[in-house]
Amino acid sequence: MHKRTYGIFDAGEILDEPREECGVFGMYDFSGEENVAPSIYYGLLALQHRGQESCGIAVSDTNGPKGKVLSRKGMGLVNETFDEDDLDSLCGNIGVGHVRYSTAGASTIENAQPLVLHYIKGTLAMAHNGNLVNSPELKRDLSRNGAIFQTTIDSELIAYEIARARTATRSVEEAVSLAMGKIQGAYSLVIMSPRKLIGARDPFGFRPLCIGRRGSAWVLASESCALDTIGAEFVRDVEPGEIVSISPRYGIRSDRSHCQRSSKTARCIFEYIYFGRADSEIDKISVYKSRIQAGRFLAQDSPVDADLVIGVPESGNVAALGFSMESGIPFGQGFVKNGYVGRTFIKPSQHSRESAVQVKLNPLRHAVEGKRVVMIDDSIVRGTTSDRIVRMLRDAGATEVHMRVSSPPFLYPCYFGTDIPEREQLIAYRRSSEEVCRLIGADSLAYLGMDRLPQIVDGLPICSGCFSGKYPIEPPTEDIRGEYER
Amino acid sequence: MHKRTYGIFDAGEILDEPREECGVFGMYDFSGEENVAPSIYYGLLALQHRGQESCGIAVSDTNGPKGKVLSRKGMGLVNETFDEDDLDSLCGNIGVGHVRYSTAGASTIENAQPLVLHYIKGTLAMAHNGNLVNSPELKRDLSRNGAIFQTTIDSELIAYEIARARTATRSVEEAVSLAMGKIQGAYSLVIMSPRKLIGARDPFGFRPLCIGRRGSAWVLASESCALDTIGAEFVRDVEPGEIVSISPRYGIRSDRSHCQRSSKTARCIFEYIYFGRADSEIDKISVYKSRIQAGRFLAQDSPVDADLVIGVPESGNVAALGFSMESGIPFGQGFVKNGYVGRTFIKPSQHSRESAVQVKLNPLRHAVEGKRVVMIDDSIVRGTTSDRIVRMLRDAGATEVHMRVSSPPFLYPCYFGTDIPEREQLIAYRRSSEEVCRLIGADSLAYLGMDRLPQIVDGLPICSGCFSGKYPIEPPTEDIRGEYER
Amino acid sequence: MHKRTYGIFDAGEILDEPREECGVFGMYDFSGEENVAPSIYYGLLALQHRGQESCGIAVSDTNGPKGKVLSRKGMGLVNETFDEDDLDSLCGNIGVGHVRYSTAGASTIENAQPLVLHYIKGTLAMAHNGNLVNSPELKRDLSRNGAIFQTTIDSELIAYEIARARTATRSVEEAVSLAMGKIQGAYSLVIMSPRKLIGARDPFGFRPLCIGRRGSAWVLASESCALDTIGAEFVRDVEPGEIVSISPRYGIRSDRSHCQRSSKTARCIFEYIYFGRADSEIDKISVYKSRIQAGRFLAQDSPVDADLVIGVPESGNVAALGFSMESGIPFGQGFVKNGYVGRTFIKPSQHSRESAVQVKLNPLRHAVEGKRVVMIDDSIVRGTTSDRIVRMLRDAGATEVHMRVSSPPFLYPCYFGTDIPEREQLIAYRRSSEEVCRLIGADSLAYLGMDRLPQIVDGLPICSGCFSGKYPIEPPTEDIRGEYER
Amino acid sequence: MHKRTYGIFDAGEILDEPREECGVFGMYDFSGEENVAPSIYYGLLALQHRGQESCGIAVSDTNGPKGKVLSRKGMGLVNETFDEDDLDSLCGNIGVGHVRYSTAGASTIENAQPLVLHYIKGTLAMAHNGNLVNSPELKRDLSRNGAIFQTTIDSELIAYEIARARTATRSVEEAVSLAMGKIQGAYSLVIMSPRKLIGARDPFGFRPLCIGRRGSAWVLASESCALDTIGAEFVRDVEPGEIVSISPRYGIRSDRSHCQRSSKTARCIFEYIYFGRADSEIDKISVYKSRIQAGRFLAQDSPVDADLVIGVPESGNVAALGFSMESGIPFGQGFVKNGYVGRTFIKPSQHSRESAVQVKLNPLRHAVEGKRVVMIDDSIVRGTTSDRIVRMLRDAGATEVHMRVSSPPFLYPCYFGTDIPEREQLIAYRRSSEEVCRLIGADSLAYLGMDRLPQIVDGLPICSGCFSGKYPIEPPTEDIRGEYER
Repeated sequence: MHKRTYGIFDAGEILDEPREECGVFGMYDFSGEENVAPSIYYGLLALQHRGQESCGIAVSDTNGPKGKVLSRKGMGLVNETFDEDDLDSLCGNIGVGHVRYSTAGASTIENAQPLVLHYIKGTLAMAHNGNLVNSPELKRDLSRNGAIFQTTIDSELIAYEIARARTATRSVEEAVSLAMGKIQGAYSLVIMSPRKLIGARDPFGFRPLCIGRRGSAWVLASESCALDTIGAEFVRDVEPGEIVSISPRYGIRSDRSHCQRSSKTARCIFEYIYFGRADSEIDKISVYKSRIQAGRFLAQDSPVDADLVIGVPESGNVAALGFSMESGIPFGQGFVKNGYVGRTFIKPSQHSRESAVQVKLNPLRHAVEGKRVVMIDDSIVRGTTSDRIVRMLRDAGATEVHMRVSSPPFLYPCYFGTDIPEREQLIAYRRSSEEVCRLIGADSLAYLGMDRLPQIVDGLPICSGCFSGKYPIEPPTEDIRGEYER
Repeated sequence: MHKRTYGIFDAGEILDEPREECGVFGMYDFSGEENVAPSIYYGLLALQHRGQESCGIAVSDTNGPKGKVLSRKGMGLVNETFDEDDLDSLCGNIGVGHVRYSTAGASTIENAQPLVLHYIKGTLAMAHNGNLVNSPELKRDLSRNGAIFQTTIDSELIAYEIARARTATRSVEEAVSLAMGKIQGAYSLVIMSPRKLIGARDPFGFRPLCIGRRGSAWVLASESCALDTIGAEFVRDVEPGEIVSISPRYGIRSDRSHCQRSSKTARCIFEYIYFGRADSEIDKISVYKSRIQAGRFLAQDSPVDADLVIGVPESGNVAALGFSMESGIPFGQGFVKNGYVGRTFIKPSQHSRESAVQVKLNPLRHAVEGKRVVMIDDSIVRGTTSDRIVRMLRDAGATEVHMRVSSPPFLYPCYFGTDIPEREQLIAYRRSSEEVCRLIGADSLAYLGMDRLPQIVDGLPICSGCFSGKYPIEPPTEDIRGEYER
Repeated sequence: MHKRTYGIFDAGEILDEPREECGVFGMYDFSGEENVAPSIYYGLLALQHRGQESCGIAVSDTNGPKGKVLSRKGMGLVNETFDEDDLDSLCGNIGVGHVRYSTAGASTIENAQPLVLHYIKGTLAMAHNGNLVNSPELKRDLSRNGAIFQTTIDSELIAYEIARARTATRSVEEAVSLAMGKIQGAYSLVIMSPRKLIGARDPFGFRPLCIGRRGSAWVLASESCALDTIGAEFVRDVEPGEIVSISPRYGIRSDRSHCQRSSKTARCIFEYIYFGRADSEIDKISVYKSRIQAGRFLAQDSPVDADLVIGVPESGNVAALGFSMESGIPFGQGFVKNGYVGRTFIKPSQHSRESAVQVKLNPLRHAVEGKRVVMIDDSIVRGTTSDRIVRMLRDAGATEVHMRVSSPPFLYPCYFGTDIPEREQLIAYRRSSEEVCRLIGADSLAYLGMDRLPQIVDGLPICSGCFSGKYPIEPPTEDIRGEYER
Repeated sequence: MHKRTYGIFDAGEILDEPREECGVFGMYDFSGEENVAPSIYYGLLALQHRGQESCGIAVSDTNGPKGKVLSRKGMGLVNETFDEDDLDSLCGNIGVGHVRYSTAGASTIENAQPLVLHYIKGTLAMAHNGNLVNSPELKRDLSRNGAIFQTTIDSELIAYEIARARTATRSVEEAVSLAMGKIQGAYSLVIMSPRKLIGARDPFGFRPLCIGRRGSAWVLASESCALDTIGAEFVRDVEPGEIVSISPRYGIRSDRSHCQRSSKTARCIFEYIYFGRADSEIDKISVYKSRIQAGRFLAQDSPVDADLVIGVPESGNVAALGFSMESGIPFGQGFVKNGYVGRTFIKPSQHSRESAVQVKLNPLRHAVEGKRVVMIDDSIVRGTTSDRIVRMLRDAGATEVHMRVSSPPFLYPCYFGTDIPEREQLIAYRRSSEEVCRLIGADSLAYLGMDRLPQIVDGLPICSGCFSGKYPIEPPTEDIRGEYER
């Protein structure tokens, strides 16, 4: 008999989706009565879409011995990593949590967060979302002064800069502010010091961060959906460049010295198109609404005569609803997605009759048969699965398949935390839209126009460097990815 | 600080869904060239919705020593239980697989299937979906002849009856036929003997079973979606009462001696309403179409003036599309479902501010705000979450919430494999529709009418005992559930 | 670089030791106050030397619902299989436990014991040590009446015979007695019925079984060392052929109808030479004393002029002490044994410079250098490690190495529960003592004489079939080992 | 029924043994042909007695990309942590390994070694055995310059000092030398740089370190028994204060600039009495011989009229042999030790009839009955088990029990890596020998005299601070233990 070999692989890869980097969460109960670990756990469950490789929680009791931090990290999903005993043993009224997908730095337990570090002023725990662009310079500089690095993540560099600054400042916040003067790039930080919870966001606001409240407790979270999940009320977003410091003594204090003119800020547009959960609101813009709008624009700009609009599950569904609303073509469900193979399963071997896409998605023959179908996806990266999905729809009886993509074509690297393959692997690289259409076998193909991007977020200043090659910060000249391997 | 206690719990429970029992799969490659374990694995992934408690695969090499069976079973999901080494070591060209949710018999590894048993004629492996109604009688009778039982599942009784019959018959098929003369109730069986793959379905056809083909291999599966997933083509359903025997020597042979007049058959209607995957076709009826039809009937029979139709994810979505089609009210997405907590997570404690439903579902404020909403769910069991979901929609700004249920109210027990709570726990028990509506806090509530049930499956004879209390077979007088505990 | 491949392997294999089969334990607290699971756990720890492949505990509460049995089994060592939660959840005042090394039947979780079975009179849990010689006949006979087998162990056959007998008897004890009329071979049984703890030993008494007491609780155990460990006092051995039934109602009741004249009994002599723990007493004979005596006889019968007596750890040490006492040659420690690789580690590859024996044992150069050494081992099976150990001693500076073996040469199979390799693999098969001596490279070699065997156990009737080929029961004509594989 | 609670606990604790800290191992194959990971694995197995909490291996391929290090660490024993796939994936011809028992720094995966760190000159992996006395000062000093600490172990401080020094030196060795000028205390280091294997030992030589060779490979190991296990030949010890640098280019190069006069060195005497494996030779002194000698001295200095000499297994056995040789009283085996519960098992609850000591040790009644027994142990720490063991021997029939201890009484803390409880917990603290004798219930008690300590190691200069309170280095004024907790 034939021997077959397999490989475990990741659903993001199967469905050719760009992959997200990290989610951060922090909580501080002023009353000192409540253990925050369970709420951090639920918060991280709500942020799981932002990273599925590793996760961690670190807590402290502000009434206990100063600097005593309890932490637990693990590879895998939040509900796989923590059991009841873990939550019971993580006893404390202040804490931070993290979910991670590695965009830089290898996928190992050493690189899992929160980072817990002991430094001149005691102990800090830090959770970080984003990517720096000047890490080689920072690393060089720190090395020259004798620094040692035990991880391969940017977050360790940020920790170093804060620790160095702290030797000359009166408070952690000031040290964070000094450190922010040195680090460049995308970062949303949640930091726990013995008696304060601190949030900080880079001056461009690449990655989201918001503030919530539940009774006597304050919360920081990457997305507002995490506030909903724990029953906290949304207070406001942390502004780009802002440092917020939360303590019973002073309440919320804000340092806006790194803030810049709003017009210079640059949210990652992909947070709206794909990363963010549809029920989140980021910088006052509803992710849901921006996707509906993208779908409407696609219908306006690239209309098509068809019988049915479907989305590629899950991420294409909202834009498909928008397309349907605008065009009047009925929305339908085109596929059944196998929800049980969400993360990993054994990959079919080369010579197998099974296909990974087919294991994950199956077209609904009775919905698409004999129909001219408009299929909406949020993006095309390598194009490997679009090709397969178009074929599946035709096999199921669709008479025409028109693909509409709710973002422009990927053409450039991202230096701010989105994992985009090498240019040579991008299907749109050096190919016209017509060529791509032919490759994936669709009857027509249209992308969302570059000019539409600011419009789907009501004119909010954005970074769309992965589509345009124009970045709000000078991109690094050295390769900042994968410097070390373990 | 307050100490909190938790409990791991199951998503079915959170969302108040009835729970399914089992999925079966079998495959036989006549060429002897192909290891069937990987395809069984993918087939079971596709049937995972039918049972998430335990799973197993047993294979044999028809060119190897007769009766040598390799098997592996485990608690948990298919992708958690099997790794590459398992698939590599399960070497054979014939095999059966099983996924299980226990409706009778405790949830233990002893009760996991396939059952592998050594008997007078060698070795059999058997996978079973369904529940017998005369198990106490069978058990008593077998015990009197000295039988011992090592599991608490009906399947062991069936195995015994086959083994006993086999002492007096020339072939396994005949033994299966004799055994079918003794056992009463719901069963779809896939049996592997050293040189044959056998499928059998009870004379009422309660549970589905179909036949597929891929090249030189034949396949048996609970649902046709499993055939699609492995790239096999659908051949036909096994008929109620039919025994099919598949072997290279005789091809497919059929024994229809237990078949009865079509009008006496009785498919479980809940396979269409909830259990089956929308992309499956059962006894020539598309599950998708029957749900669309149920939604249309709801719109016809219980219309409502509203702005938006939404489904409770995932199972309410297709009926919601049907309602939208019929009523012309736009379909929308009302919730974001957290796909990462699909199965288990730590349950919020009593006094916690988090709710299990909220962890799993979050309303899309921007979709429902200011809208009169029709919310479709496939069923209401205890009503505990309907209440919560209605409240969540109102909190998110829905001005009216009208609930429509694509099945009649649950009022009676099922003896054929569906896990329905005690009557006292059923919200519809001794309550009018108006009372239930008030309890869940909806503006209006309507169920699908009993008369509509046969219509959604084109007049196919059905069992709707859980709604009507009228069963195609006399229900047992003794309690047949949970006799033993371990 | 060279790729190396490895295999996990077992310490018994490394040190060329015969391997034991099983240990059994039962406990019944009449007061109903005490959970017996923890004491069963400690009892099994003390019996761990009798089997390291799998283990299990089954308990019941005699004040609870009749026939409700809680059980847990697993592959591996007792301290790896059970955690505190397991012991806490195994709540009951009566129970049985088992440790297993497979001599017949594959090593799988299905074959782990205790067997828990539901039969005509309720529920039984059974733990068994030994091997039957008429299992093929029993199996054939049971099969003809429609029995199905879910394991490949003899114990299932015994369970069947008891269940069949039970249909016609008034009590479990009577059923056990009837079953004992049918089964032939070696068996020590501990059986838990809802209200009784039953012990039984085959009429030859091949395997040990003894009775103990601690306060209001009665205990059955394979060896008396398990009584010591739980602080129970030794009451007496179960006699060969005896059935003891323990219940609050009747206390201890004994059925000796299967007992035969003492002269016809036949304890396995290897229980004294190797299997038993030195601190156990079996049928009134101290294992320690019998080994001291074996060493003394070796010194008398095969004296040698030497400077030092050492044992191959651990099992050779006591006989070495006996040799030293008799000969006056000082006893010393010749090796350091790595206690941390007790069970499994990664086997050095063929081409590696490491040797599995060396990983496990290292000679004490400073103890043996320049000395004429007498090395005592309990047995030589394949001789593969004797060869290596002799070489190691010479490399460490021993000027002479004289090997003395505290048993006669292995020449024949055992049908009663000892795992002895095929004859072709036995070093003594078709080889004179001189040839073996040359093969292992010793200066001299002597075995314990056959006539000495009864003497080391004070004339107790023994089975020494593995040395003599003469068995107390006719050996089976069919192969009874490894019939099925999984 | 009574509910019982348990605690997993450690065998060292049960038998009241002092606990060791760490073992280190390094290997470099110059030919570049051989993967060193398997040999490191076997080396660590041989050093397992030095630490059972965590272990790790880091390797690099000197022909591969510079600074690429592959590593794997885990909590638990070596044979539990590594499987074949791990060894296969740890591909490289240079590597270091570590086993750890925490004497300072909490027992967490973060604190497991080897430390792998990226610094100005690339990557280092370091394994460390010992404890510094000036860590608070070092930490303070480093913190002031902005250092951050991610572990709570001294090894991280050493790494920092090397990294700082490296900014101003031409080679790693020089940096190690500079760092050694700053750190004070006990340390044996094995360091892997991209192209060199470096070993270093503190100027006092507290902890052992030796050099071995096997073909084209060089080896560094804590003890010579690890060389035997992998079939390497012993070359020499690393001298106290010496730095050895091993590379294909220069072979072995030695820097002795930190060496001091031999008379000022100070080996930990407890390495000979207890920690070291009997088959090791440390600084030319056989551990076995020093224990035999200790036993002889006890017999000379504290003779007793008795019938039998026994050792408390395992560590008391060699000294017991020495006592027997000198006194002429026969040596015997007094106990059976349960080798399967070597590390952890569930601790009997307070109210249980089982005792942890009894689970681990059982006296051999037939060896000690009616005898006047001399029992040798290597040390008494808290005395909790001596008491129990004496009682067990009496219960087993010993008429007299004379305890002899092959070390002086523990009275003072150790700052150099031995884990000794608080003074208040030491049985000898503020108690005369007679009082201790009474407490443990022995007929007589004698310790080895302080003057005998140098004699058992042939006059080698030693540290015996834990007995005398006199240390070769000024002890720290601050508490250096357990500063952080996680």
